[in-house]
Amino acid sequence: MEPKKFRVIKSEIRILGVDDGKFVPQTEGSAIVVGVVFRGGYEIDGVMHTHVEIDGFDATEKLASMINSSPHRKQLRLVMLNGITFAGFNVVDIKKLNEITALPVIALTPKEPDLEAVQNALSNLPKSQERWKIILAAGEIHEFRCKGKKIYMELAGISLVDAEEIVKLTSISSCFPEPLRVAHLIASGVSF
Amino acid sequence: MEPKKFRVIKSEIRILGVDDGKFVPQTEGSAIVVGVVFRGGYEIDGVMHTHVEIDGFDATEKLASMINSSPHRKQLRLVMLNGITFAGFNVVDIKKLNEITALPVIALTPKEPDLEAVQNALSNLPKSQERWKIILAAGEIHEFRCKGKKIYMELAGISLVDAEEIVKLTSISSCFPEPLRVAHLIASGVSF
Repeated sequence: MEPKKFRVIKSEIRILGVDDGKFVPQTEGSAIVVGVVFRGGYEIDGVMHTHVEIDGFDATEKLASMINSSPHRKQLRLVMLNGITFAGFNVVDIKKLNEITALPVIALTPKEPDLEAVQNALSNLPKSQERWKIILAAGEIHEFRCKGKKIYMELAGISLVDAEEIVKLTSISSCFPEPLRVAHLIASGVSF
Repeated sequence: MEPKKFRVIKSEIRILGVDDGKFVPQTEGSAIVVGVVFRGGYEIDGVMHTHVEIDGFDATEKLASMINSSPHRKQLRLVMLNGITFAGFNVVDIKKLNEITALPVIALTPKEPDLEAVQNALSNLPKSQERWKIILAAGEIHEFRCKGKKIYMELAGISLVDAEEIVKLTSISSCFPEPLRVAHLIASGVSF
């Protein structure tokens, strides 16, 4: 999809932050994935969840259906993911997620993605080529510096300028957006 | 326990807000109960959870053990409960919870508790007298008005003056403390 251009980014923009919970790596089963609706970087408007298969292939579809079936869908303007891999190597195709939900997607990580290490890890999994393709489909990794720290973003349906502004707007105590910080706390806190 | 006297109530006081998630009434099984650690009325520091039996008798013990085993325990200064009944009629003995955790407890409801209706509902459950005793043990129900709305509180280990101040401090958009509003959103949002 063509990047959405934000004419104005309101301080109360509704953002969905998404992260997965704890799981036992390399086992069968699923992990909880939590979405938390924030107004800008402060108030929480709602919480939703789904489950994705550990090392499976259903993350894109499960996230899209969690978002599209939510009563908060109409208010949402953006989706932020804590990286693009959930429950191990269940990779989210962020371009596809952007298409299905019609919402811009920012996938953020505080660590620089080590693609070589990822490719090596993938080689132990079935359908490693298919997973690798989805990872590459996320496109360019943008390095971005705020409050003295580097973070790394992959984008779908949003310009780099708008993405940087939204990350800054929603990062309160550190250079990490509140919707993702809180999604992480909730997903970990309700796991097991 | 003697009510704890707060010499100063700091704006960043760490409060645990606790609420239960959805469950199918009058069935066997359990409901999730979520605790969310707030600094005052704004920042979320952590999330914890436990499960309590639907219409069971384990809520006091399960909440106490969730709190006492949490890495956040040392920072916590107060526990807020969304009422005293969880997962149906699994009643929390707030005096006992105060004793076991050594933390003051405020149980809050936006609706005036209708004790007659509660007593009638209890009569359909096993051990109704035992439940009724725990409900009465919560002590006086204090009506309290803030931002034009009434709310109702039962207290353990805290004075009415301190409890009112903390409720006001943590109520941002409406007369309902953020730790409880968000505990409710999380517990509902991750149920089923």
